[in-house]
Formats: sequence, structure tokens, C-alpha cells
Amino acid sequence: MRILFIGDVVGSPGRQMLTTYLPKLRSKYKPTVTIVNGENSASGKGITEKIYKQILDLGAQVVTLGNHTWDQRDLIEVIDHCPNLVRPANFPEEVPGQGYKIIKVNEIEIGVINIQGRTFLPPLDCPFKKVDQLIAEIKKRTPIIFVDFHAEATSEKQAMGWYLDGRVSAVVGTHTHVQTGDFRILPNKTAYITDVGMTGPYDGILGMEREAVLKKFITSLPVKFEVAKGREQLNGVIIDIDEKNGAAKSIKPIIINEDHPFFD
Amino acid sequence: MRILFIGDVVGSPGRQMLTTYLPKLRSKYKPTVTIVNGENSASGKGITEKIYKQILDLGAQVVTLGNHTWDQRDLIEVIDHCPNLVRPANFPEEVPGQGYKIIKVNEIEIGVINIQGRTFLPPLDCPFKKVDQLIAEIKKRTPIIFVDFHAEATSEKQAMGWYLDGRVSAVVGTHTHVQTGDFRILPNKTAYITDVGMTGPYDGILGMEREAVLKKFITSLPVKFEVAKGREQLNGVIIDIDEKNGAAKSIKPIIINEDHPFFD
Amino acid sequence: MRILFIGDVVGSPGRQMLTTYLPKLRSKYKPTVTIVNGENSASGKGITEKIYKQILDLGAQVVTLGNHTWDQRDLIEVIDHCPNLVRPANFPEEVPGQGYKIIKVNEIEIGVINIQGRTFLPPLDCPFKKVDQLIAEIKKRTPIIFVDFHAEATSEKQAMGWYLDGRVSAVVGTHTHVQTGDFRILPNKTAYITDVGMTGPYDGILGMEREAVLKKFITSLPVKFEVAKGREQLNGVIIDIDEKNGAAKSIKPIIINEDHPFFD
Amino acid sequence: MRILFIGDVVGSPGRQMLTTYLPKLRSKYKPTVTIVNGENSASGKGITEKIYKQILDLGAQVVTLGNHTWDQRDLIEVIDHCPNLVRPANFPEEVPGQGYKIIKVNEIEIGVINIQGRTFLPPLDCPFKKVDQLIAEIKKRTPIIFVDFHAEATSEKQAMGWYLDGRVSAVVGTHTHVQTGDFRILPNKTAYITDVGMTGPYDGILGMEREAVLKKFITSLPVKFEVAKGREQLNGVIIDIDEKNGAAKSIKPIIINEDHPFFD
Ligand SMILES: [Fe+2]
Ligand SMILES: [Fe+2]
Ligand SMILES: [Fe+2]
Ligand SMILES: [Fe+2]
Ligand SMILES: [Fe+2]
Ligand SMILES: [Fe+2]
Ligand SMILES: [Fe+2]
Ligand SMILES: [Fe+2]
Repeated sequence: MRILFIGDVVGSPGRQMLTTYLPKLRSKYKPTVTIVNGENSASGKGITEKIYKQILDLGAQVVTLGNHTWDQRDLIEVIDHCPNLVRPANFPEEVPGQGYKIIKVNEIEIGVINIQGRTFLPPLDCPFKKVDQLIAEIKKRTPIIFVDFHAEATSEKQAMGWYLDGRVSAVVGTHTHVQTGDFRILPNKTAYITDVGMTGPYDGILGMEREAVLKKFITSLPVKFEVAKGREQLNGVIIDIDEKNGAAKSIKPIIINEDHPFFD
Repeated sequence: MRILFIGDVVGSPGRQMLTTYLPKLRSKYKPTVTIVNGENSASGKGITEKIYKQILDLGAQVVTLGNHTWDQRDLIEVIDHCPNLVRPANFPEEVPGQGYKIIKVNEIEIGVINIQGRTFLPPLDCPFKKVDQLIAEIKKRTPIIFVDFHAEATSEKQAMGWYLDGRVSAVVGTHTHVQTGDFRILPNKTAYITDVGMTGPYDGILGMEREAVLKKFITSLPVKFEVAKGREQLNGVIIDIDEKNGAAKSIKPIIINEDHPFFD
Repeated sequence: MRILFIGDVVGSPGRQMLTTYLPKLRSKYKPTVTIVNGENSASGKGITEKIYKQILDLGAQVVTLGNHTWDQRDLIEVIDHCPNLVRPANFPEEVPGQGYKIIKVNEIEIGVINIQGRTFLPPLDCPFKKVDQLIAEIKKRTPIIFVDFHAEATSEKQAMGWYLDGRVSAVVGTHTHVQTGDFRILPNKTAYITDVGMTGPYDGILGMEREAVLKKFITSLPVKFEVAKGREQLNGVIIDIDEKNGAAKSIKPIIINEDHPFFD
Repeated sequence: MRILFIGDVVGSPGRQMLTTYLPKLRSKYKPTVTIVNGENSASGKGITEKIYKQILDLGAQVVTLGNHTWDQRDLIEVIDHCPNLVRPANFPEEVPGQGYKIIKVNEIEIGVINIQGRTFLPPLDCPFKKVDQLIAEIKKRTPIIFVDFHAEATSEKQAMGWYLDGRVSAVVGTHTHVQTGDFRILPNKTAYITDVGMTGPYDGILGMEREAVLKKFITSLPVKFEVAKGREQLNGVIIDIDEKNGAAKSIKPIIINEDHPFFD
């Protein structure tokens, strides 16, 4: 079976790229399941129920999130009515929403975990301990487990990859908005990439207008971040998994932008 | 003219990779100048004068550093006797060492700047202000300027790339030890990559033994980090520059490991 | 001569305390000059021109700020028309506003510096280097220099106190909103206190409604912080200085709240 | 009943102050139980079994710790043989040592909890959730509970004070090494102080030699921190508690240094 995962969708440019390329990618790669990280899909900050549904309509089966989960204040009221939306699992118990989702496609079940790092990010429950719990639960039903580890530090992300090697099908990083070139199958058959990158503006800074970000770095004055205009990009990965035992067979990056045109 | 840059060399496995592959890379690519980031070349922590000289002997012309510059305590005594060693330029004025070096190869002069980010790293002088000063100085002699921006956050690195687009030949990031896939020529002819990656162990966590790093993440107990054993990797970039005006023409990643074998 | 300094004024409860007690304190202690930190005086976030003028009308001669300087977005347009408003001096050069103010009362000139720490706070220029420059400038006119060091870490604040001991009349810390008990005259006659504390709600968390702050700590969900209601407090210090040479003679804390009633 | 608590003991100057003043303080105040934070008692970094025993011999019944718990690498081997030593309770489950201790003096049982904050400190389990668990356990045996909350941020410490108001006898902060002046009985009868301060050098920076700390702040170069020499200080609190229900009746600071001499 095959998973298509799309990195952090940023604002309307990101949604536009999904609209244009998700059908083409699905037609070309025929993924069993498509997963999209949507933590920046609403104006670069969080997600709304409407956008979540729009992403599903475009062909995704699961939408994952990250540290921007709650940026759109209304989400907290409706997240429990979004069955295929997954927020970081290591928020405290009482927080609404779910940390993983098992979806069934044809007769195959795939567990999708979203979990957040703590290095250079706000304190949450230990992601390593939490992921152990979730894997134990999910393994009762399926050996195919996909982990979107939303984290800043390359150390913490590599640590999670090696920690889960042989126990899950894939550990893909998100959050830094820059795709890394280190996609590989770890020795015990877990697909790994430190960061999948982002989907949205190609000429912004993490997808945001450059002028504001530069002003902030140079003057330390507060600025209003807006999603950048202009050229666009899409970043993702394609992962092939042995559906009998969950072992990853391959992981390939997808990069679409003016310098890397898409071919059907 | 052509620059070969090698990302953070980690410990003896990293030096071993330099010993094996620097001659081959120089023979294959015939770079005008070779630059190596050596901030982790001594047991993963800093550099010694001896190792600096060894890296030059292997064919590099300039060695750059980063936040680990002072990990080997003796360096501070000898750094001013290492003419081709460059440490982050935005340390305060009174700190020994130099923040840039102009080297001359045949009749071409190339300015090499090392500068450090401040996001998720200790406070230093503003890297954006400092780099402006250095560029003004170097431009009096040469339009070919190479910047090794040693920083953690992808936002700060992209910001530096765009800030310097059209003003320098290349901005390459170091420090995260993971090569990114976003190498490109920015619109005003500056070569850019968020991180070049590392040179050393292939199966460690940032080059360190996995067991210790995992123990630290999981238990919060202090551990002793040692450079990992086993398989090795090398990460670098090749940048072609128009020597008349400093404009970048191309940037290509170099990845050598068991999954990406080297071909002469 | 005598300085009355009032710690971070928080919202309308803080302004209310100033309205009630500044006249009483000035009548009781007869300070030569009164300085108020107003970084939280507008709804807990920043200051407006109107509130700045109101604080001067209540009897202050200088208003200092901190990391919340720019929370009210309009301030940046008018700060250069507020002659007695001082924001952290170690913002970059191009930032509006001033980092120190020399005021003249009768025939005595007093230099008032506001400067911000970098530990656990955003990067700015080095406060130690910057304060050296400012002292050199101010010393041309007066030996009486008062420093409001707005910083989080006790280490950085003690470091600044000792760094300036014998060079300025007083180093008082602000920002943590909790008055410390370590007020003292350092060996070379500089008055020092790690933090003066805050002026505003007595039963909040740093002056903010407790429920929201607790919810944030416990759930990691975003919350809206509002200035707390109920009982109020005022925190300040009285510093006596030899006007001939700027040497501090004494520093005494002022605490007004239901547990520490004010006596005329 | 009465608790005497002594803030972070730093190195041999701190132990010297304990040797001199703990007998005098116990003779003057006749505490039912004496608790000492010893996280810096071994050369400023951690504690050894020998020093732990020495502190007990000087008259303490319980020794608490903090973020420096593991600085002396041997402690991890012996901590489980130190029945009255308490390390932060929110380390992960598998970590040696205990997070609370119930001691019995005459017929009174007192629960002593040590717990660590997460703001500006490394990630640990949630201190608010953890303290809830511990209180539930301890309440089965005694209503008298003393909490040493080892934390950096005043916000997190005030939050813990209010969170536990009415549920424990006392919440005292440690870690910043500067005593705060905000000791009070909260409305529901919990004694509170944001930080008790430190015991050791009086003229250092947090107890360390000033030159090294200043060099670090000014140059960003690494330095070797040593415990400062010279004059000494002791900081503590005395808390009176109704032994029938655990309600705090009073909290008073203790400060001993050349500016605040001790009187029998
Ligand atoms: Fe994102
Ligand atoms: Fe994110
Ligand atoms: Fe490195
Ligand atoms: Fe580094
Ligand atoms: Fe404040
Ligand atoms: Fe502040
Ligand atoms: Fe301490
Ligand atoms: Fe501590």
C-alpha cells in the first residue's frame, strides 16, 4: 500500500496548490491513502472546520496538525466533530480532539499519529512515552502506522525516527517548512524524513511575506505576518509499505515548484 | 569559478570521510576553492589547531566554525595563528579570531564569511547588521562572497538568504546536521540552501551515539555524548559562480553514504 | 537627592494605585524625581501616549518601558513626541524612541537609562556594551545615573548590578513583577535591587486573571489574558543619592497592599 | 507546628553558613522540622551522599533538590539509599529517587514535595498534574504538605501558589537564588513566597565568582564557574502551620548577611 503525505499547507496559496496538484498526484501515484498537514491552512495560522472539509474533498483522508492547532479559536468547539482531523497526541488528557486516527481503505487499516516535539517548543507531555502508548493501542488493530512528528529540532526528530525504527511504518517530520534530503528506510524498515517541507508560497519566508519577517529580525519590532503572494510550491513524500507487516519499502520526496516542474 | 563546501565535520568519522573523499571530490569537480565547516571535528566538539591544519592538508582552503567554536578550550590561545580559520563574525569585538577571510586562488579573490543566528541560540550581535558591514568591506576587493550562516531556525536562515540575495554569491546554512532539499538560485543570483548537512556518522543522531541521546530525551537525565560508530556519510554542495560579478550560476547537493554511493 | 521609582504599572488597577498613592508617596518622601515603569499600563500590554501623559500628570518625570514597549501598535508613530518616555536602549539604531533621558530638576541633572536583558528574552544588542556607551555620554553632563534594567534572569540582573557598581547611582531590575528582598548598596556605592515588582492587581498572576493563566499552564491551550480584578498593590523603591558625586546612600523598598498598609 | 526552610545551599560557603547558623536558628525558632534545598551544595553543582548526610547531621530532616540534581554523576547510584533526599517529582517514572517524603516528628507527619517548573527549564512531566497526584497520596496520611517548587518564571511560581491555595500548607519557590519580598498567606491559608533565595556567597552572581559570569555575558565565550569567595549569606523562611488541618498561620523571611546581622 502507498501513502501520499503533503507537508504543512500554508494559507490560500497552499490550498490552491492542493486544488491543482492533489488530483494530479493521486492520478499519477495512486496512493492508498492521502494525508495532509493542515496546521497553517487558514491564513497561515491553524485550520477551520470548513478548510478541513475542503482538504478532505480534495482527496485527503486524514488531516494532521501541530503547534498552530489552536490558532483559529473556533476550532476547539468543533474539533470533536471532525473525525479525520488529528492534533498532537501529547496535549494533556482533557484537551479536545484526538491524537491518532485509524482509517480503513478497502480492507486495509492505517493508524495515523500526530505528535509534537518539546525542544524549542512549548512544554507538552513526553512525545516518546506518549507514542509508545498509542502504538500499543493501534497495534491491536493494524501493523501499518504513520507518524507525523511535528518538531523543530533535528536532534529530536532523528531521535524519534530511531526510537520507532521497526515499530512503525513511517516517521515523517513537519514544522520547519523546509524539506530535508535525508529520506531513507531505516535498518528495521521504517521510512524516515526529518521534514517534509511546506505547501504554499515559494518565495516567502516559511510561506510568509519576506518584508515583515526581515523587519522583525532586523529591528525586533513587532510586525504583522501575512501569507506571501507570488509563486507557489508543494512538498510531500510518497511511501510504499508492505501491507502484511507494515514494513516500509520506499520513501520518495515530491517537490513541485517552478524549479522542479511536475510531470504527469 | 567553483566552490566546494563540506557541512559540519563530526569527529574522527567525519575526518575519515574527508580523508577518503576530499581528494576524489576535488578530482571530480575541480573546485577553485574548498571550504569545510569544522565546528565538530574534534570528538564532535570544536576543533584543535592540529585538526584545522589536517583539514587544510586534505585540500581545504578555509575552515568555518559555529556555536561549538570554543568547545576545545585551547583554541582561544591559538586561533589568531590560524589564518584560514573563520569563526562566527558576530561575536563581540574583543573575541579572538576572525569573522571572514579573503583567499586568493590564482587571480581570483573569494571572501568567506561565517556568521551565527540568534534564534534558539545564545545572544550575539545582530547577524544581519554584522553581515552588512562585512560585505561592505569585502566588496572593496571582490564581488565573490560566500556566507556560511550557522543557525538553527529555518526562518532565520531563509531570511538571511533573501536579505543577501543579489549581494553575495552564496548563503549556505549549517548547524542542523541535516541537508535540506531546497538548494536553489534566488532571483537575484545568490545560491541558497537552508542546511548543507553533516559529514561523519550515518547512523547516529546528529552524529552522536543514539543510545545516549535517546536516554536524555526520555529520562531527562544527563548523559555523555560520544561520536557514533559505524557507517559514515558526507554532505556538501558545489556552487558555480560567475567570477566577473559574483553571480551564482548553479548549486548542487553532494550526498555520499551507503544509500547514495559516490561515482567518480 | 532622592529618587522614587515605581515598578511595572499593570492596567487600570495599576493606574488607579498611582492616582491614589503617588501624591501620598510624594508628599511623604518628597522625592527629587519620580520614575515609573509603564510597560504594562495599557490593559497590561504596552502604553499609549494618553496614558504616558496621565502618568506624568500624576507626578512622574520619566516613564520607562521594557519588552512590552510596542504592544500598543500606535506608540511607534508617537514615541518620538514623548520627550520623557524611555524605551530599552539596546533596540537597534533605527528603532524610534530614546534609550535614556537626562532630566533637570532644580539644578540637578539625572540620567535615566532603560535597558533590556537577553536571557529568556528576544535578541537585542548587548546590554552591557550599550550601557557602557550611554554612561560615557551621560557622564559628560551628570554623575547621577539611574538604570532600569528590564530583564528576566536573576543572573543577568545581578551581573549588571556588579558591572555598574561604582559607575552609576542605581541599578533596579524590572519585568518579573515580583519585588525581591535583596535591595542593598553595593560596595562601590551603587544602589541595587533585582526586581522592584509591579503595581496593579494583588491577587492575579503577574497582574493577570488567574483562571486564564492556570488554564494555559495546565492545558497548553491558548487563552486570552485579562488584567485581574479585585485587591490592588503598589511596589517601588526610594533611593537616596549624594548629588555631588552620584554615590547611593540608601535604598528602601515600598510595598503597599492589604497586608502592608500605607501610613502617611 | 513550625517549618524552617533554607534556600539553595551553594558550595562550601553555603555549608559553612549552615554549620554556623542552623544550630542558632533551631535554638531561636525551635522548628518542628527543618528542610534544606541542597541542589548546589557540592561546589555549586548538585549534591553528594556525603554532603546530604552532613546536612542532616547539622539538623535538617529533609533535603530537597532541583534542576542541578544530577550534576554530581555518582548521585544516581546512591539516591535510592538516601531516604530523606527528595528530587523533583516530575522526572519520568523510571528515574531513581523520590519526589516526596513523609516525615514524622513526634506524632506529626509532614509531606515534603519537590517539583520543578518547565518555563525556561528543560521539559519534564507537567508539574501541576503531578502535584495533584502526590497531594492525593499524601492527604491519606496527613494534611500538612510543604511544596518546594523549583522554577525560574515568576508566572509559573505564582500560578502554582494559587493552584494549591487551600490544598497544601506552603508553596515556596527556589532556583532563582534571590529572595522575594512577596511572602504572604494566600486567602485559603497556604503560605507562599516566590523564591526563598540562596545560602552561600553574598557577593557573587547567584553564588558564583563574578568575573567569570560577567565575562560570559559580555564576550559569549565559555568560562569555568567557581563558587565565589568572601562574605556569606543565608536565606530562609519560617512557616507556622496549624497541625490539626494544615492551614498556614504565618510565613516570615530569614535573611542573614553583613547588612542583616543575626540576633539570637
Ligand atoms: Fe507549519
Ligand atoms: Fe508548526
Ligand atoms: Fe555542527
Ligand atoms: Fe552548530
Ligand atoms: Fe512588566
Ligand atoms: Fe516586561
Ligand atoms: Fe539553585
Ligand atoms: Fe536550580
